[in-house]
Amino acid sequence: MSDDKIKIAVFPGSFDPFTIGHESVVRRALDMFDKVIIGIGFNTTKSRFFSIERTTEAIQRVFKDTRGRVEIKVFKGLTVDFCKSENSRYILRGLRTAADFEYERAIAQTNKAMYPEIETVFLLTLPQHTYVNSSIIREIIKQGGDASLFLPRDYKI
Amino acid sequence: MSDDKIKIAVFPGSFDPFTIGHESVVRRALDMFDKVIIGIGFNTTKSRFFSIERTTEAIQRVFKDTRGRVEIKVFKGLTVDFCKSENSRYILRGLRTAADFEYERAIAQTNKAMYPEIETVFLLTLPQHTYVNSSIIREIIKQGGDASLFLPRDYKI
Amino acid sequence: MSDDKIKIAVFPGSFDPFTIGHESVVRRALDMFDKVIIGIGFNTTKSRFFSIERTTEAIQRVFKDTRGRVEIKVFKGLTVDFCKSENSRYILRGLRTAADFEYERAIAQTNKAMYPEIETVFLLTLPQHTYVNSSIIREIIKQGGDASLFLPRDYKI
Amino acid sequence: MSDDKIKIAVFPGSFDPFTIGHESVVRRALDMFDKVIIGIGFNTTKSRFFSIERTTEAIQRVFKDTRGRVEIKVFKGLTVDFCKSENSRYILRGLRTAADFEYERAIAQTNKAMYPEIETVFLLTLPQHTYVNSSIIREIIKQGGDASLFLPRDYKI
Amino acid sequence: MSDDKIKIAVFPGSFDPFTIGHESVVRRALDMFDKVIIGIGFNTTKSRFFSIERTTEAIQRVFKDTRGRVEIKVFKGLTVDFCKSENSRYILRGLRTAADFEYERAIAQTNKAMYPEIETVFLLTLPQHTYVNSSIIREIIKQGGDASLFLPRDYKI
Amino acid sequence: MSDDKIKIAVFPGSFDPFTIGHESVVRRALDMFDKVIIGIGFNTTKSRFFSIERTTEAIQRVFKDTRGRVEIKVFKGLTVDFCKSENSRYILRGLRTAADFEYERAIAQTNKAMYPEIETVFLLTLPQHTYVNSSIIREIIKQGGDASLFLPRDYKI
Repeated sequence: MSDDKIKIAVFPGSFDPFTIGHESVVRRALDMFDKVIIGIGFNTTKSRFFSIERTTEAIQRVFKDTRGRVEIKVFKGLTVDFCKSENSRYILRGLRTAADFEYERAIAQTNKAMYPEIETVFLLTLPQHTYVNSSIIREIIKQGGDASLFLPRDYKI
Repeated sequence: MSDDKIKIAVFPGSFDPFTIGHESVVRRALDMFDKVIIGIGFNTTKSRFFSIERTTEAIQRVFKDTRGRVEIKVFKGLTVDFCKSENSRYILRGLRTAADFEYERAIAQTNKAMYPEIETVFLLTLPQHTYVNSSIIREIIKQGGDASLFLPRDYKI
Repeated sequence: MSDDKIKIAVFPGSFDPFTIGHESVVRRALDMFDKVIIGIGFNTTKSRFFSIERTTEAIQRVFKDTRGRVEIKVFKGLTVDFCKSENSRYILRGLRTAADFEYERAIAQTNKAMYPEIETVFLLTLPQHTYVNSSIIREIIKQGGDASLFLPRDYKI
Repeated sequence: MSDDKIKIAVFPGSFDPFTIGHESVVRRALDMFDKVIIGIGFNTTKSRFFSIERTTEAIQRVFKDTRGRVEIKVFKGLTVDFCKSENSRYILRGLRTAADFEYERAIAQTNKAMYPEIETVFLLTLPQHTYVNSSIIREIIKQGGDASLFLPRDYKI
Repeated sequence: MSDDKIKIAVFPGSFDPFTIGHESVVRRALDMFDKVIIGIGFNTTKSRFFSIERTTEAIQRVFKDTRGRVEIKVFKGLTVDFCKSENSRYILRGLRTAADFEYERAIAQTNKAMYPEIETVFLLTLPQHTYVNSSIIREIIKQGGDASLFLPRDYKI
Repeated sequence: MSDDKIKIAVFPGSFDPFTIGHESVVRRALDMFDKVIIGIGFNTTKSRFFSIERTTEAIQRVFKDTRGRVEIKVFKGLTVDFCKSENSRYILRGLRTAADFEYERAIAQTNKAMYPEIETVFLLTLPQHTYVNSSIIREIIKQGGDASLFLPRDYKI
């Protein structure tokens, strides 16, 4: 084996809300990593649409079938510091579009400049999830629409 | 462990030539995978600048320090068939730019449509390698320039 | 004829302000559609620079020559629900840039997932209007500049 | 009615091969246009993988249920001249990605500069077809793979 | 000489904070221009993270070695009006990514439409600075991280 | 003055053909540089549509009003070597689209890695020239169309 420690990936985000696209990335990542920690970034300056508590519970229900291999945690501060505290050397991110890519690249290269031993690993969202986007979903809900099509089956929020 | 089999990634390409960007992606992937197989795609309809034989030897020298964890193989046919024959469920690719991303996404989603169990895993090239590009390097060499700056230290071709 | 009903397109937006680019898209769409309804989305959470009332009146003056084939309406809620209430199966949008495109694609694919019978139809802005952009225009006006160059001839606001 | 003539769109391309993405764009355009003419551009300088004859026949089978509202024609020369000869004022194109968009915009704006009365109308490919791409399909077939997943049901070539 | 007047470029921005990427663009521009005026745009509606006063002083320290060829000024109103008041016909901007480019193009073409005699001149950021971005840096500092890696050596703020 | 030598920019390309977009970039660059050398790259492996001789003559006619400040030269080998031989430290390029930008950035960063003292300076094409593109123009001419709309007034080829 290349590494005798278990491989832990951190999947950071605000997940406001957590979508079917997010779920798919986490499930596929479980093939590569021993554990995936979904890290909900706590940000005092940006207000949330769904509270961190309800988001945490809703995500937990989605992954109750994964026998503890998916953990949901809330973190403050830098993502790279959270990774260190969790003994994770991998940041997991999904890529949907070219616009996504440019933003994700800037964040990932900034993280690597600060902590060169942490690697960001990207999976693609599935084609049918490419357009699924938390901010559009929030807008649908604000306008009184039904967004359940874009949320995981067991995600009740 | 999530998987009792060793994790093998295939890093496919034409590598005409293999660059410092390619080298960096492979070395970083060795942290995540037990073995990386560099698969040089053999294409009868596209002529190469450097022969497959010389390319294979040059890449071998670059990774002679990896104790057999990097293998170099030539394959014909589809990348996904090559992965299957090598018992690999991961295709490894480096991402440099947004233009890269759109092309890589089309290839990866096509592969996944054909073999859903194969996942493409993306790492970013390092910022200082973003512009390093095999076709520009070939052009430099054709025009009589010195491209050694963009090739791995032990890559003699 | 392929359809015995009249063809109505909804052109949704905040139009804060309505630009020469918007005008050109609507006028060209009148060749394809029997009627174009300019739908000004009412959003309680985002404040406007120009009021909905003044915007409505200003757009009406621009299209007073179209013999009722352009209507201006204000709507609340989802664009797709507004389309349904207007018996429109077409959402009309102008495309300027690649960044525009990625955003418009996400919105349009989300709309189609919710209401598959509604199609988004895209026209290009004219080359000389590519850079004309409501948020840049607002900024010019805030800084005391003259933005009349970017607004329709009869658009007094 | 805004127009007493029937509305004809030309859908130009090389269609080498015609994909499920192309089929979906044509079928959805039949809601907006009375007739869609699929124009296979004949190009003496670019060699085809599938012959124009077989491509024409294969596309005809795909649309045999459309009661003559889809025609397949081969044309030489400029797309805009073909449109004129067919009394069509609309060029129909599908958009998949941001890279697509930039290329399509250049072609469409060039066409409009030459013939201002011809408008290019864009529909999005469906999310699940975004990656489907004639040149990748040709590559799969050349490498001995099965591409039927990406071709219309009745497309035998 | 093509011009008997000295060539002055205005480098406008909010510089909140001024990064190593900004510094590199200004230093390289000193080869082409006789003077570079760093114009800190004063915006009453957008609040700053670092005050204009401290930003001005910090930038001054960075360029104290340039014998007056770099000036730092604060301006209100349109960038093009500031250029006129400084007798500058050149706006200097750095380009990092494709997303940057689309935004910068819209601004520059809007400026040129208003004042055709003012030209925007673009230099590339260096590859190793491509990801360095004021808004990511502010986020690092807010989260308690150390961003000195991304700031000029003498930039104390 | 920042520099007692005259400022010379090299504007390299294949110019097959030279377009109104190219002309506009060169004319605007004459404000910044004392001389612009249009360098037609001679490439033995890529065949041209218009010969180098006719291209050179046609471009010369376009700039006959510039009193020798625009020179047209043919070069072999690397662009950076041509710059050195012409005592030019500036490569001039026009930017039209985001796709352009990514390609131009790779070339420019490669050039800078080889010769750090040479800087690439970018001007934007005008909005109305954004879509004007030598390869589309060649295609129009091949198909028997009239491309004079996209060529400089005195460009007879």
